[in-house]
Amino acid sequence: MNARFYAPDARAEGELVALPPDEAQHLTRVLRLGRGASVRVFNGRGAEFEATVEETTKDEACVLLGPRRQSAPEPRVAVTLAQAVLKGDKMDDVVRDAVMMGAAAIQPIVTTRTEVSVATLEKGRRRDRWERIAISSAKQCGRAVVPQIKEAVAFETFVPTLAPLTLSATVLMFVEPGAASEAIPLGALDSKPSAEAMIVVGPEGGWTPEEVAAGVAACRVVTLGERTLRADVMGVVGLTALFTAWKEF
Amino acid sequence: MNARFYAPDARAEGELVALPPDEAQHLTRVLRLGRGASVRVFNGRGAEFEATVEETTKDEACVLLGPRRQSAPEPRVAVTLAQAVLKGDKMDDVVRDAVMMGAAAIQPIVTTRTEVSVATLEKGRRRDRWERIAISSAKQCGRAVVPQIKEAVAFETFVPTLAPLTLSATVLMFVEPGAASEAIPLGALDSKPSAEAMIVVGPEGGWTPEEVAAGVAACRVVTLGERTLRADVMGVVGLTALFTAWKEF
Repeated sequence: MNARFYAPDARAEGELVALPPDEAQHLTRVLRLGRGASVRVFNGRGAEFEATVEETTKDEACVLLGPRRQSAPEPRVAVTLAQAVLKGDKMDDVVRDAVMMGAAAIQPIVTTRTEVSVATLEKGRRRDRWERIAISSAKQCGRAVVPQIKEAVAFETFVPTLAPLTLSATVLMFVEPGAASEAIPLGALDSKPSAEAMIVVGPEGGWTPEEVAAGVAACRVVTLGERTLRADVMGVVGLTALFTAWKEF
Repeated sequence: MNARFYAPDARAEGELVALPPDEAQHLTRVLRLGRGASVRVFNGRGAEFEATVEETTKDEACVLLGPRRQSAPEPRVAVTLAQAVLKGDKMDDVVRDAVMMGAAAIQPIVTTRTEVSVATLEKGRRRDRWERIAISSAKQCGRAVVPQIKEAVAFETFVPTLAPLTLSATVLMFVEPGAASEAIPLGALDSKPSAEAMIVVGPEGGWTPEEVAAGVAACRVVTLGERTLRADVMGVVGLTALFTAWKEF
């Protein structure tokens, strides 16, 4: 298949569209494509087109949109992954994998045992970085949707938003085996999918007892098997388990 | 919970057991435990005990086994992960995650697009390394079973073993969406578990068409969703999907 590029301005066949700088550089410098090359572009909101490179300079690329093409289908249930920010570049992997698995959005959260503050995340422009990773992962996995990376929020700000959400969505907080007597195995949930869902995953050091109690009060608290899973795979395991139960696989 | 140590010689309450050198050093040097400390030991074959440190030197530790204790339960279906060896330390992560997910054994395989040979793996003593990682992961996730790491084999040697295995086990080769017209979505399989199963996962560069054809002839070829998954999460995604379908979660 032709190389795929992200072009948020792409709307309809016949348009001439400039690629964003990162994408233009990928086209011209990495893949060394020029005028007349056949490519694919997707707009990050579900539309994908055949396209032809119309003009390039060292840092710019314009493409002419051709017919719409099918991209990898989106899951029927829009699942947001609310993930406690992990150490180092582990959060990068979580973003990349969640996009690949079909997550609809990613909500970074800062919990008691998260080793970075909301202010530090903002100062370090981590959200911009995660957005670039989401675009890159969408390019690789074949999606035409780039999941939204939300602003990082503190757990105390986040948890009050959950109870109202449960009226229309399936909201699941994953905890370690034995962390809460109220926790039920994922397999014991009814498997009828809501239109929307959210899964909430803690940091390396786990949830505090207070956070688990707040989760129990606000949403459904579930376990994934009876072994202790590492925080950096919990998101991908949770997405896989839900999509399997809901016959997306 | 008390720290857990791997003691393959542990068999019954009342025995005095020497820990293997790595474990003894973990006990004495990292955790700085000494005579009288309460610990847990597991033998890697499913038995776990309370234990008391009886004697330590700089590099040795003996423990006295107390009563049997429950460890994290094993899945009812014994699933072997046959994984094409990945680049660098990515295979380490696959081993660690597969143990944590409850795999019964790991079979490294060398395919056409695997960037290392069976001879190089043997020379580099990679199997010893993976065994140490499996022990470490079992300690962390709470299992009392250390999954067997099998000798790496070439795909050509491996694939003829699959057809006979399908008589008693569910054998699934995961392929990318569109890789084979015979491939069916995982969700379309009947969900009655065999007592044993094997999942077969390719390398970063994917299977060759010849390997896919050999898989189609030997076992069931399945896809996991319609997005292209990275090779280093395919194993954990496959294990999660099977264990969800089989109500292990």
